[in-house]
This record gives sequence, structure tokens and C-alpha cells, in this order.
Amino acid sequence: MTKSWLPIPSGSHFSLANIPFGIITHSRFQVPRIAVAVGEHALDVNTFAQKGGFAKCSGLDSSALKVFTEQSLNSFAALGRSHHRTVRNYLRDVFRADTPYPEVLQANEGLKSESLIPLSEVQNHLPLTIGDYTDFFAGRNHAHNVGTLFRGPANALNPNYNHVPVAYHGRASSVVVSGTPLNRPWGQVLPAPGATTPVFKPCAKLDIELELGMFISRGNNLGQPINVDDAEEHIFGYVLMNDWSARDVQQWEYVPLGPFNAKNFGTSISAWVVLADALEPFKTAGLTNEVELQDYLKETKKDNVVDINLEVALITENGDENVISKTSSKNLLWSWPQMVAHHSVTGCNLRTGDLLGSGTISGFEAGTQGSILEQTLGGKTPLELKGGEKRSFVNDGDTIRIKGVAGSVDGELVGFGECVGKILAPISRS
Amino acid sequence: MTKSWLPIPSGSHFSLANIPFGIITHSRFQVPRIAVAVGEHALDVNTFAQKGGFAKCSGLDSSALKVFTEQSLNSFAALGRSHHRTVRNYLRDVFRADTPYPEVLQANEGLKSESLIPLSEVQNHLPLTIGDYTDFFAGRNHAHNVGTLFRGPANALNPNYNHVPVAYHGRASSVVVSGTPLNRPWGQVLPAPGATTPVFKPCAKLDIELELGMFISRGNNLGQPINVDDAEEHIFGYVLMNDWSARDVQQWEYVPLGPFNAKNFGTSISAWVVLADALEPFKTAGLTNEVELQDYLKETKKDNVVDINLEVALITENGDENVISKTSSKNLLWSWPQMVAHHSVTGCNLRTGDLLGSGTISGFEAGTQGSILEQTLGGKTPLELKGGEKRSFVNDGDTIRIKGVAGSVDGELVGFGECVGKILAPISRS
Repeated sequence: MTKSWLPIPSGSHFSLANIPFGIITHSRFQVPRIAVAVGEHALDVNTFAQKGGFAKCSGLDSSALKVFTEQSLNSFAALGRSHHRTVRNYLRDVFRADTPYPEVLQANEGLKSESLIPLSEVQNHLPLTIGDYTDFFAGRNHAHNVGTLFRGPANALNPNYNHVPVAYHGRASSVVVSGTPLNRPWGQVLPAPGATTPVFKPCAKLDIELELGMFISRGNNLGQPINVDDAEEHIFGYVLMNDWSARDVQQWEYVPLGPFNAKNFGTSISAWVVLADALEPFKTAGLTNEVELQDYLKETKKDNVVDINLEVALITENGDENVISKTSSKNLLWSWPQMVAHHSVTGCNLRTGDLLGSGTISGFEAGTQGSILEQTLGGKTPLELKGGEKRSFVNDGDTIRIKGVAGSVDGELVGFGECVGKILAPISRS
Repeated sequence: MTKSWLPIPSGSHFSLANIPFGIITHSRFQVPRIAVAVGEHALDVNTFAQKGGFAKCSGLDSSALKVFTEQSLNSFAALGRSHHRTVRNYLRDVFRADTPYPEVLQANEGLKSESLIPLSEVQNHLPLTIGDYTDFFAGRNHAHNVGTLFRGPANALNPNYNHVPVAYHGRASSVVVSGTPLNRPWGQVLPAPGATTPVFKPCAKLDIELELGMFISRGNNLGQPINVDDAEEHIFGYVLMNDWSARDVQQWEYVPLGPFNAKNFGTSISAWVVLADALEPFKTAGLTNEVELQDYLKETKKDNVVDINLEVALITENGDENVISKTSSKNLLWSWPQMVAHHSVTGCNLRTGDLLGSGTISGFEAGTQGSILEQTLGGKTPLELKGGEKRSFVNDGDTIRIKGVAGSVDGELVGFGECVGKILAPISRS
């Protein structure tokens, strides 16, 4: 375990094994700044860099340092993975109890008071400016659970499922940072099974999707696919994601072009990007695929999903916390490099800041599924919550909180904090 | 007819009734600049503005003028429609034969030589930085033609079609400006009807989709839908669009989440944005919808599609031009305001620079359909081209050229120029 001179409380997601990056504002500054989270503090990296904090960091020239003055992580991400590694390792060294550079921060009371801010005082913002957002469907257990609901177990998976890393283009503009409330959307829905004329009303089947999100660091040029074995170098880091879904809207609209309004009203992500390097120790195998893969999806190095313990809680308006799901992000059929390779195999260009979602992450057993649709069998078997409350889907006033953490050794946890979103009453219509 | 002191040749798309905006570079400047097209010239609006060209333009303050120093049209678009009107009317006045401001340009030889550049010398770039790209499916004749091919005429349209302005999120990163060649994509396809195991190979059914694109000027906040009767104020202007489609890839991948790799390798748009005001005289009714619409789609003012004469040519590598389709952009079931209202009805936020596509525009008769899939009945009845050439789909080396022009009176045409794209050999795979 790497101890820090900065107090890091027991159970913290932000140990020195982590060093996640985010964007913050504070009462002292309203222009967003780059920060890292350590224990219960944010280090204002902008101030730290401008006050010479990186003077002892070899391998970073002054042009690289400029990225820390920006209002998003895009330019830092675009530097590439070796730079992320250099910066993360250096910052960890700065915070180590046995730091080789005590003069940089530990013994520098001025810079400490200027650059270290309690997390409770900061406001988080979207960590990167997102170009395109793509959502995959790599959670095979989820695909199987939902397919069984709609088509029975024999036809649960579509014929292409085990061959193609299925995905759809999502809506980038409405990706919001954890803590941003969302209004229940209105939409066209069928009033009853078998009806042919829709009605327009607030969504009655508002659901969640537990996902992991991944940000692209360096992109590729149009017409130049990324080889699956090179894809890791294009991965910046990961966030928790809740891909809110209006199931009744989705059911009516999605044939033949896929979900649109059912998903475009909001997608929540956690605020701190856990860098790819921080999750290297937690890489593991995903779900076994029994079909022969096309060559472009065959990885030389296997074990390219990550094992993050995920937990979903539904918090009612009175504050009752109900943990409704626990699972792991290893429940994916496709690895992140496979998703990158498939996305770009046509020549499609990925760009710095593009966000890729995993698709819903589920187990098969009760209490392990990543959507309420699965947990309640389409709303038929409501969740039983504290205080006698029941939920077929999400109610107005409910908050959904996702937590995610890799590892189990206190002091070495690599966690994401939370991805929180509250559903407000339907949009008012004048 | 409004005559100009600047020679505007017969048949020009860029009459004084037009004044379209674009982004150019030239041998004299490599940093992209805002320009308008007039006849066979581009006016470098950046230089024009900096040299006092707008001094006589009332209603534009100095902060508004700053938008003309930028490298995309986003900030100009964001000013809103009344500013676009002011600027377009003023520039038209500057170019009129009876201009009230001869000293601004006509009699200002210095500024003329500095700011007027032959179109043949400029390089065009993407006119706006695109946030999200959404493609609708509003061409009901196309939907009917394709549905008939796959499901027969009785079930040609899906049950939701006449109720929902169906759309999907498209790929923004690979939208390219006219003239940009694209490599044929590779992808997973089924080797034969009834096969269950895909093969990986270059797309063998590369198709086009004739569309109109629309750029958003001012956006809306998340959670605050745009009313259908207010939507016109959010429209910046229009471009021609070719939504290239890999039909064999699409067929294998698209259930259940819609097209992804089949469309993400490239979408071509014309270079000059024709402002919404320039198309006001060509507004007309779209296709009649016989179902009762939901209130949020009911327009007080009807006639909100535009009548642009569209023409698609396939140009073989030896230069033979084959006009393969002629139709009008009025062949849409949904108006542009209806698309905007539907897109945002969930609270989804549109942003300046978002691109909305109409979906494929087709008639029913031979030679009026906007995709080769329709024209050849899925490849079964190849197009007969000059020189004995035949095409079931697009070959390597073929160029697709879309032209679009509103109006028929020479000297008052409001046209788009061309949207051109050449298909190169498949991406090389190392």
C-alpha cells in the first residue's frame, strides 16, 4: 500500500493507486479547471502547474504543461497514454508519504492552501468536451435477459449478437455530469398492448441502464481503422454511466432505426475519469464468446475488460437508500479494444473526447441486473423497497446512485465515486 | 430580378437571391475564413469585415462583427435569424447594380481585389463545427419503396411511420465537405441469403442516399423543448447531403439498434449553406399525412418544407456523366419545424451547429428515387449507363454528384452548387 502524507480516509475511492482527473469550479474560481481527486481533496492542477508544481516531473515539456490551463481534459487526453502515465505517476509520487519531492507540495504551505480544496466544496463539470457518443450493447447477460422477456429464451439473442459488437450512435449533447437532475420526458407511446394509435404523455416506464463509459484519448484519421492490438493506446479512461431509457417510448419508436427519443433526454456520467493505467491491475477476461471471431476482432493480448464492483441504489424522496443491484463490469462480451476496432473498421474516425458506452451490465440472478426492466420482468414484479414502497420503474423524486470501485484492499481502492441523477416531474408544457 | 455589378453568369446558383455562407481557404491564406458565394466569386467576409465593409450595415454592432473572424460559421449561426437576415440583406445590397453603397465595394478597387476571389481558386471546408448529427427518415416515398422491397406493399410502412418523425443519431465525426473522397469500407456481411455466419470483406452494396441537411442556429436548454411554431427561429440554413450506406453491412447489423457501421464511414455535404431566409419563397407543402397528429406536431403555419429541384449523377472514372435521379426536396412527410419539435420534445437539447438530415428523398417512378437500392430493386435490375456500363450499386472510381437548385428564373436561382464524393478502393488492411 502506498501511504500519503495527505489524510486519505478508510474506504476512499481516491487512493494513491487511482489519481482520477476531472473538471471543477469553486467559490474562488468560476472558470472550470482541471483537477485530480486524492482522498477527500481535489488538487487544482491548473494552479499547481502554474506555480511550478511540475518542475520535478521529467518528460513533460512546457508545451505539454499548457494543457493544464484548459477548461476540459481534451488536450491532456490527446497527449497520449505515455503522457498520462508520466503525469499520474508523478502526482502519486508528490502525494506519497515518502515523497521524493517534499518541497513541491507537502512542505509548501502556500501551494497547499492554494491548490488543495476539499471535495465537498467543489462543483464538478463534464470532464471532456464530447464529440460523438456511441453506446455499445456488449452486456450479453442484459441482451439475453431482455431478449428472453420479449422473444423467449430460445431466440433471446439476435443472430448477429455474438458476431458483431452491436452499437448505436447516441446523443452527445445531453450527456450530463453526476448530480444533474433530469425531467421526466414526454413522448409518443402506445396506450395498451395491441393498440395502433399512440398517445402523447409523460413516460410511464422510466428506466436506468448501468454502464461503464470510456473516453478516447488520441483519435484516428478517416479511412484509417485502429487495429485491435493498438486500441489500448487510444483509451484515455473510464467513467460510470447511467443511460436513462424511456421504455414505453422506445418500444413504439425503435423499429427500424433504433432508439432515439427514448434515450436522447439525458445520460449521466460520473465526474472523475479513472485513467486506463489505474485499471490495469484489474483487467480480466470478459464473457466467453463461443463463435469464431473475424480476424479484426482477435486480440493477441486477452483480458481486456476491467473488473469493477458496481452497485446501483434507488434513493426515495424521503432518503431511504435501496441497493437494487450489484454486479461487475467484467460482464461484457466485447473488450474495450474490440469495441474500438469494430467502431473504426469502416474507416470511421474516432476523436479525442469521444465517449463509448459498454451497454447495460447485468448478471442473470435477481439483484444483479443493470436495468429495472430486467429486475421487474418488464414491470410485472415490482421491486420491494424500504417503507413498503414498490417500484415497477423510476418515480418522480427518485434518485439513482451508481457506485463503482475496483479492488478490495483499503488504501489501494481505485474507485469512481458516484454517478447520481434525480428524476424530476415531467417537463412542463405550455 | 436583382442585377449585380459583379458579373453573374447565366444559370448561376449563386444569384443575389441566394447569398450562401461557407468556409474557405486560398493560396493566400491557410487559416479558414468565412465567405459568401456570389456568381463565380467568393467574398472573403473576414477581410471584408475587418476593412470596414459592414460600416454601412445598421443593426450589427462590433461584437456581432467579431463572428466573421472565426474559422467556422457557428458563432454567426448562434446570433439568430434576425442577424442572418440583416447580414444577407446588406450583402445583397452591396452587390446590387443599383447599390446604395457603391463606395463599400463596387468602387473600392482595393477591397475588391483583396476580398473577391474566383470560386475556382478556393478550397471549401466544413461550414460549421458539427456537435450532433441526426438523420431523420421523413422521405415517405423512400420508406415505402424500401419497405415494399423487404416486406411487400401491404406492410411497406412500419406502424409508427405516419405518427412518429422517425430518426436515428448519426456519426458527426465523419461528415465531410463536398469533394472529399471516401474509401470503400470493410464490414461484416452475410455471404448469401439464409447464411448465419458472416464474412468480413469490402462492402459489395455501396449505396447513396439523397438528402437535404439542415443546420441549427440557436439551440435550446436541456429540459426545454422547442415548440413547433417557434422552430423556424432555430434553423440556420440548408445543405445537400449524401448519406453513403453500406447496404450489406446494414442488413446484417441493424437489428435491433439501427444502422451503425453501415453509415459511419462518411456523409458528404455541400459546401455552401443556403440560409433559411433565401428559401422562404420556395416553401411549400410536403406529403399529405392522413393520420391525426399529436398536438406537439401540429403547425399553425403550414407549408414548411422547401421545393428544391434535386439531381443525382453517377460519373464513371472515364468521365461519363449519367443523371440517375431527379426529384424535389418537398417529398417529405415531416416539415423541418416538425423534426425540430420532435427531436426536442423529450427535453433533448439542440446546439448551434447540430446537423439534421431529412432522410432519403424519393419519388415513386423510375429515375426519381434517391437511392440506388430503390432504383435497382435491391441490385436486381442494374442501372444502364453510358458506354454499356451497368451498376447495381456504386463501383470504385465512381463519383456521385448531387445538384440542387430552387426556382427556375435565371438570375434569381437559389442553388447549392454541388455535393460531390468519389469512392476509392477499399481501405487497405495491413
